[in-house]
Amino acid sequence: MSDPEPRLTGPVLVVGAGLLGTSIALALRRADVDVALSDVSREHVRIASGLGAANLTAAGVRPELVVVAVPPDALGTEIAAALQVHPQAVVTDVGSVKTDPLLEALEVAGEQAGGRYVGGHPMAGSERSGPLAASDSLFDGRPWAVTPHAGSRPEATELVLALVEVCGATAVRLGPEEHDQAVARTSHLPHLLAALVAGRLADAPEGHLVLSGQGVRDVTRIAAGDPALWQQIVLANTTALTALLRDVRDDVDTLLAAIGHRDREALADILHRGVRGTAAIPGKHGGLPTPVATVFVTLADHPGELARLFADAGEVGVNIEDLRIDHDPARDYGLAEVSVAASAADHLLTSLETRGWTVHR
Amino acid sequence: MSDPEPRLTGPVLVVGAGLLGTSIALALRRADVDVALSDVSREHVRIASGLGAANLTAAGVRPELVVVAVPPDALGTEIAAALQVHPQAVVTDVGSVKTDPLLEALEVAGEQAGGRYVGGHPMAGSERSGPLAASDSLFDGRPWAVTPHAGSRPEATELVLALVEVCGATAVRLGPEEHDQAVARTSHLPHLLAALVAGRLADAPEGHLVLSGQGVRDVTRIAAGDPALWQQIVLANTTALTALLRDVRDDVDTLLAAIGHRDREALADILHRGVRGTAAIPGKHGGLPTPVATVFVTLADHPGELARLFADAGEVGVNIEDLRIDHDPARDYGLAEVSVAASAADHLLTSLETRGWTVHR
Repeated sequence: MSDPEPRLTGPVLVVGAGLLGTSIALALRRADVDVALSDVSREHVRIASGLGAANLTAAGVRPELVVVAVPPDALGTEIAAALQVHPQAVVTDVGSVKTDPLLEALEVAGEQAGGRYVGGHPMAGSERSGPLAASDSLFDGRPWAVTPHAGSRPEATELVLALVEVCGATAVRLGPEEHDQAVARTSHLPHLLAALVAGRLADAPEGHLVLSGQGVRDVTRIAAGDPALWQQIVLANTTALTALLRDVRDDVDTLLAAIGHRDREALADILHRGVRGTAAIPGKHGGLPTPVATVFVTLADHPGELARLFADAGEVGVNIEDLRIDHDPARDYGLAEVSVAASAADHLLTSLETRGWTVHR
Repeated sequence: MSDPEPRLTGPVLVVGAGLLGTSIALALRRADVDVALSDVSREHVRIASGLGAANLTAAGVRPELVVVAVPPDALGTEIAAALQVHPQAVVTDVGSVKTDPLLEALEVAGEQAGGRYVGGHPMAGSERSGPLAASDSLFDGRPWAVTPHAGSRPEATELVLALVEVCGATAVRLGPEEHDQAVARTSHLPHLLAALVAGRLADAPEGHLVLSGQGVRDVTRIAAGDPALWQQIVLANTTALTALLRDVRDDVDTLLAAIGHRDREALADILHRGVRGTAAIPGKHGGLPTPVATVFVTLADHPGELARLFADAGEVGVNIEDLRIDHDPARDYGLAEVSVAASAADHLLTSLETRGWTVHR
């Protein structure tokens, strides 16, 4: 992205004082930009203001930029309202889906006013919601999709890119339809299939789940997300999701036939395509996936053990890329699964063994 | 499990010197049990022996226990062969599926000899394979399913439980059919659906995957597993998997209909069942899932930062239950997602802030 110098001067009106809205307001205040907050819940505004998220009252403010941070169902209406109520302001939002709210807003506010709207979608969140969960560093280093439509004015896009910059995020520019197709694939479909795998666990006979390993925990983790929110997200992105779900249904039929006919080739095709898919996810810092290797370390389950492990790894100059702790269902120790650059794995293994750790690859 | 005192005296013959077979042999040697190794690959036997995995040659050995650690396709044949060639020995295996190999072995070796067979399945592995990846601590603290069939002799089961104990694992006793149903649900179905989600990424237009977050990475991670091995596992567990895949196909149809008719109730049902499923996975140490809370910490991407974080957490007495590093695709720092007991989260947050960390929940 070739960002311009930030030129956001404010004031900014944030509509919706939930997790995302309040966090944006806090990030703006961190940069000394004037902020006003509004929300249907007075309590939310009071809490967010108490956290220092606003220094102006919403009544009478003439914002340079309005950030609409409301639930998916209300997006189109609130974007249109912001365009109409603030005829000088640029308007953006933080919704997970871009096409439907855009069409709704253009229909209500008109094409002319719609030129001041540029969609946005920060890739950040938390299991928690509401203003108390907010933080001025929520977006630090996260991707933030910026989705100008055909009628968006260039200077409106520049202002939204400046907001992303102030929030410490990294702008990713996409068209609205392209964005919705991308998140259907990278977020909404994974969520739905995780829910289906988890749903089969909910039906499991007692005692079967004791064999659950790290794999199924990873696959199902996101299925714990708020159903009320996900229901709205899914119903706001039906076109892209329907196409993908039909492909998945075809794949399931292919799997059933392959298993029924013991067709090794058909099964192998699906498994190999899965391997290619995991390799296609971009690596750290947007580069190509870097080869990483895993080192397993046995560790006692009490405070300080991981500190000692990380101190030892740091001392021998190995940067730990990722770590998971695989809990043992029956013992008082765990296995740390430490991911490092493939080129550093042997060095780490030997170094840790020398320092008395029980290690294997 | 009410384990007896281990009474494994050896010698043990391990058939198959891959990752699992060699690791079992190493664990037995660690406990001073005599071990012989065989494999169709002389190279594998040579490497494993070089690692200290065997102290006897396979020719002429009279084993107390034979451990069959061969690929799924060869299990039934090799279990039957072990029962026939070693008429005094108890026989077990480490295969991911139990019913089909059992039926095949009983058919070849007969019901009488089959009394000496008790299946096993350690829940351990690695992305790597072969004897060089082996470790005597591979099974430390892992669940290990022990699956006596209707005709298994009690003393054979006791001997296999003793093997699990020597390897440092935790025995989970299940019938063979029950085991296969359990792993279809907790391992094989998650693998296949992870492969379907990942498969849709392999098809993605260029640039769409830059929006990939931690969620899709977690869902698809296991889909990187070896297709040749998974092809065999899936085809050895067709009955249980077919039933589950049909349920999934019905779910996908329900989803498509719910999305097509904007049926919020039907969609909510599936999402809520997913939430229940994630909550049903047993927690640490086999207990009920413990409430955990997440604290996010911004950290620079160089050696020593995590060490400093863990040292600080350890100093204030907080035990870190799990940690993930959420990589930023474009910047030189990351977000550590630190899971701790819900009761300790606020204390950790305050303590880390006091020590200068950028933290939020």
